[in-house]
Amino acid sequence: MRVQVFLTPGEVEPAVVQEATVVVADVVRATTTMVEALAYGARAIYPTSSTEEAVKLAASLGREDTLLCGERKGLKVEGFDLGNSPSEFSRDVVEGKRLVMSTTNGTVALVAVQEAARVVAGAFTNLQAVAHAVADDEDVVVVCAGREGRFALDDALFAGHLVRRLGTGLTLNDGARAVRELAGAVTPSPDFLSGTEAGLALAGVGLGGDLEICGDVDRHGVVPELRDQALVVAGG
Amino acid sequence: MRVQVFLTPGEVEPAVVQEATVVVADVVRATTTMVEALAYGARAIYPTSSTEEAVKLAASLGREDTLLCGERKGLKVEGFDLGNSPSEFSRDVVEGKRLVMSTTNGTVALVAVQEAARVVAGAFTNLQAVAHAVADDEDVVVVCAGREGRFALDDALFAGHLVRRLGTGLTLNDGARAVRELAGAVTPSPDFLSGTEAGLALAGVGLGGDLEICGDVDRHGVVPELRDQALVVAGG
Repeated sequence: MRVQVFLTPGEVEPAVVQEATVVVADVVRATTTMVEALAYGARAIYPTSSTEEAVKLAASLGREDTLLCGERKGLKVEGFDLGNSPSEFSRDVVEGKRLVMSTTNGTVALVAVQEAARVVAGAFTNLQAVAHAVADDEDVVVVCAGREGRFALDDALFAGHLVRRLGTGLTLNDGARAVRELAGAVTPSPDFLSGTEAGLALAGVGLGGDLEICGDVDRHGVVPELRDQALVVAGG
Repeated sequence: MRVQVFLTPGEVEPAVVQEATVVVADVVRATTTMVEALAYGARAIYPTSSTEEAVKLAASLGREDTLLCGERKGLKVEGFDLGNSPSEFSRDVVEGKRLVMSTTNGTVALVAVQEAARVVAGAFTNLQAVAHAVADDEDVVVVCAGREGRFALDDALFAGHLVRRLGTGLTLNDGARAVRELAGAVTPSPDFLSGTEAGLALAGVGLGGDLEICGDVDRHGVVPELRDQALVVAGG
């Protein structure tokens, strides 16, 4: 298996992902939230690249069973049903619903790679499930959503732990080698995440409690996978 | 001391470097070559962002004591005096000369941060000298030149070892924390560099031997520092 890790979305060239399985990670918080939502029964999650697009898509899907979700600067977008805190996406809120989601980094990164052979969403909460889901794929590309185009330690740490769980005998690019070493030295936890730039920014807007879920490794067994522009439970 | 490491040049915002000491690293090979040239008596090195600009600048400086240097796809630019192999820059070739240099990554990254308060060039060959030179600065930014805008393991490893040599009690950004962990696990050497993407590309154009110098840690005590758009020996 070849595993390439890209530490920022801007480093990903279309030709690199075309034939690959792409794992998109935005640990704090978009992909964690997506895992939460599908684990608790959401039917599908539509990632979008702007709030405008999200509003338009939600209207076209029909608002009765669709929830508009997302954040800007960490906070719920005005007029949206939900923000981007994983704890908001409980079973009683999301079960049976379609979610249309727009976040600063995660949903944008997902839309950018939607032409790939296969696209899944990864977070610490479904780490082992993702490792299992891609284990038989020849060409795996991990895209760290980062923070507004810049490196984010939380996503890199996820990528590193995913590489480690994929085992030995892998062909790795520079990014994959770097994050594997990082993961060898750092165990993910809510406490560790609280010291990252993403964690500090989240605490700055009063949402530091979200990290309890973001750092809860292997909390769920579901893998969000893109089908017809919506994330659904892989194999579901 | 605050230390921020940026893993690709595109992540560096002008406001971040304005008041900072910026260390630019392109270990394989531009900054290694610069250290070599200044250690062996070159008067000044003018980094440029294109071969055209290099040709024009060399003409305006006067060609009698100016050498045109640089590479594209790793190989010497046609019509240039020297390529970008550190071993070309021996005392008998460069002593007393001004060098105008254009490389794919390193010189471009240097030009991009030239408005910073202070700009120095770092490589494994002058690692300790750089650590010493910036030790009293409050705000240090390390820019990894990378490979055509993408992450490069060799530059990240340099950044990590620089952070480690700067000691404890530092305020680090996400990038600095990641590369510090990387450096804790990986010792730089020609052999290690030969397995990086930059090392493999170099071997692919028949220049793998350059890594012997690139991986020779603390080979020199000089720090190239930008003054009036040319790199000269800091404190020299």
